[in-house]
Amino acid sequence: MIKVGIIGVGTVGTSVAQILKDNADVISARAGVDIVVKSGVVKNLNKDRGLDITLTNNVDDILDDSEIDIVVELMGGVEEAFEVVKKALKSGKAVVTANKALLAYHRYELQSLAKDIAFEYEASVAGGIPIINALRDGLSANHIESIMGIMNGTCNYMMTKMTNDGVAYDDILKESQELGYAEADPTFDVGGFDAAHKLLILASIAYGIDAKPEDILIEGIQNVTQEDISFAKEFGYAIKLLGIAKKDGNEVELRVHACLIKQEEMIAKIDGVMNGISVVGDKVGETLYYGPGAGGDATASAVVANIIDIARSGKSTPMLGFDRPMEGSKLTLKATQNIESKYYLRINVSDKKGVLAKITKIFEDNNISVETMLQRPASQDSANLLISTHVAYERDIQAMIKEIEALDFVNSTPVMIRIV
Amino acid sequence: MIKVGIIGVGTVGTSVAQILKDNADVISARAGVDIVVKSGVVKNLNKDRGLDITLTNNVDDILDDSEIDIVVELMGGVEEAFEVVKKALKSGKAVVTANKALLAYHRYELQSLAKDIAFEYEASVAGGIPIINALRDGLSANHIESIMGIMNGTCNYMMTKMTNDGVAYDDILKESQELGYAEADPTFDVGGFDAAHKLLILASIAYGIDAKPEDILIEGIQNVTQEDISFAKEFGYAIKLLGIAKKDGNEVELRVHACLIKQEEMIAKIDGVMNGISVVGDKVGETLYYGPGAGGDATASAVVANIIDIARSGKSTPMLGFDRPMEGSKLTLKATQNIESKYYLRINVSDKKGVLAKITKIFEDNNISVETMLQRPASQDSANLLISTHVAYERDIQAMIKEIEALDFVNSTPVMIRIV
Repeated sequence: MIKVGIIGVGTVGTSVAQILKDNADVISARAGVDIVVKSGVVKNLNKDRGLDITLTNNVDDILDDSEIDIVVELMGGVEEAFEVVKKALKSGKAVVTANKALLAYHRYELQSLAKDIAFEYEASVAGGIPIINALRDGLSANHIESIMGIMNGTCNYMMTKMTNDGVAYDDILKESQELGYAEADPTFDVGGFDAAHKLLILASIAYGIDAKPEDILIEGIQNVTQEDISFAKEFGYAIKLLGIAKKDGNEVELRVHACLIKQEEMIAKIDGVMNGISVVGDKVGETLYYGPGAGGDATASAVVANIIDIARSGKSTPMLGFDRPMEGSKLTLKATQNIESKYYLRINVSDKKGVLAKITKIFEDNNISVETMLQRPASQDSANLLISTHVAYERDIQAMIKEIEALDFVNSTPVMIRIV
Repeated sequence: MIKVGIIGVGTVGTSVAQILKDNADVISARAGVDIVVKSGVVKNLNKDRGLDITLTNNVDDILDDSEIDIVVELMGGVEEAFEVVKKALKSGKAVVTANKALLAYHRYELQSLAKDIAFEYEASVAGGIPIINALRDGLSANHIESIMGIMNGTCNYMMTKMTNDGVAYDDILKESQELGYAEADPTFDVGGFDAAHKLLILASIAYGIDAKPEDILIEGIQNVTQEDISFAKEFGYAIKLLGIAKKDGNEVELRVHACLIKQEEMIAKIDGVMNGISVVGDKVGETLYYGPGAGGDATASAVVANIIDIARSGKSTPMLGFDRPMEGSKLTLKATQNIESKYYLRINVSDKKGVLAKITKIFEDNNISVETMLQRPASQDSANLLISTHVAYERDIQAMIKEIEALDFVNSTPVMIRIV
């Protein structure tokens, strides 16, 4: 019998205990052994969770319990969780976590600490979708060319509603908060930080490259308006928040931002709160993984799959998928300014003579070539210029935006969305 | 160092050898050990494959070679391949195969023969998509409610072209044969048999249920016409060949046939030669896996992933994903006649008075309720009735079709396509 201790019995933790009980028949058949939750750590011992497991508010009751084989870390946060899982590994207990922030900061230290002990984290990226499994095992024969993913259900829900129902950003944000899809402070989701944590984890498995959230380009969806969405529709695009990892020679781009993406792409067809991750391998080509990125049961499904894996075979795969120096030792993170992309820009200008000519000149001066341009009235005396460009360097676009912003007939900072 | 022997160095076998060489850097980092192909078995020793491995035309040169750790079986066929892999397992060699027909017939025998030895078969279903991995490991916490998949790229290519370009079935079949997507005798693909082999493999992992191809409902796409496709479009459906496994109480339905499926479903959005498999678990909900279902490199990507898995950890998972009696011991195969579905029918009738009334009466007599009905001229003196029904039993539909076929004003066997 395998005994599990859960540190943090909230929504996901309760689901983990419930699944291990509800589905004990298939789980024990698949694991080859019975798996039970022995105890759980909670902050508030007085709240009834409807579970028949021993609850404690002392983490050490689990860490020091020699009967417990697997510690499930669902407490969240970075440093405190790091101390807890280190202690668990030191006492020889396998660890399963859903904590993406912990991994975004400490995955390489954990990889070396967990040398011979299983440390699994399927639920940390894209909830119920077994994307870690796919990338680390299923696609292991490939050099990964790119990963492109809808990794945040909140943003995808908001973009879908703005696209399908014509709702304004502020209204759909309020609705998402009421539905429980977005937090009271939504920055972590809508600012792209949640997706960035997940992207960093996937990039380590794919490339062995190390980076922290502060090293990479992270932008959110806060500036997207109905104007942008109608431009996107007109030219056959959807707007999505994507996490992108892309290898280019010996460099890897890592970035999270809103994107215009052609409607024919599979990833553009993923709507609502669902997540989807497209991976291109040099041998297999494109594969895509779709499913629920959040929710207690979906996330717990991934946690329990890790528990079953460990029960089956202990440690069967290196934590990040490699045991010897990987490509990462040769690869470097591409500087943001060297990223190449097509761009979409929305520039609000006063409706005066000569404006278009001046703007066009600035594009040319910065080596940026315009693909399409639309002018639409924004108010009685201002207009929006909606412009898409051919491929350009990020540094050139940024310099140009500064130049444009400084013009007296430009009313606000131009909004830029990258096109993939 | 791990040494591999490849039995059957054709398109996929050549790709396997090539990938192990081309991607040796990431492969050895991920496997923790170098992997090389020592030798391969071919029928014709004179053909140059551009590979620097020893070739032989004697299978025993590999089976008796004590240096070879992993045998890759790519010879195809059922009984001969079965003998070869049995011999490999007996001599303690791990086996990797892409042979779906072998597994469709012998997977349970192989599961017991391979008790302590790794036997892997990721490439046998959906080529480069790691669906075995997902179902056996990633979703192991779930009771599987259903599997619904586009498992045959040839059929999906043909249906997509018929839908998008208005091409007739015979023309697109000819084009598919010229492109190499379809065989000279296309029955194995267009008749649904290829998809059925794959479905049986997935159903074993999901349910532990045993069945052979001859036990289940298998139909192809041969009767689909432009008439059906235009009906489908008009009512918001796509037509796809699907493999379906569905649990209903203590019974499991297993069936392969053309389907009308709502265009909003993710699986309906998968076009061209691509494969896609949707799995619904009781805890995780729907996840979907998309990618190339065929092709030398894509298939070899899955074969090499299995080799890496074995190099990492030997046997880490039971072959079919369970060690103790699974649900399959409680579950039985649902009799085809008891399947419930909505149906679409195309009935070619002589254009006479009273025809509609008589047909409608027969629907009623068989407990089948009509949802929509269209009548369209087919020739100068005949018409097609295009009818969709509410949910009905397969036995009632089949009885009704016989009754309708016998009517003197009905010109040919009615065509029926199930709606999912």
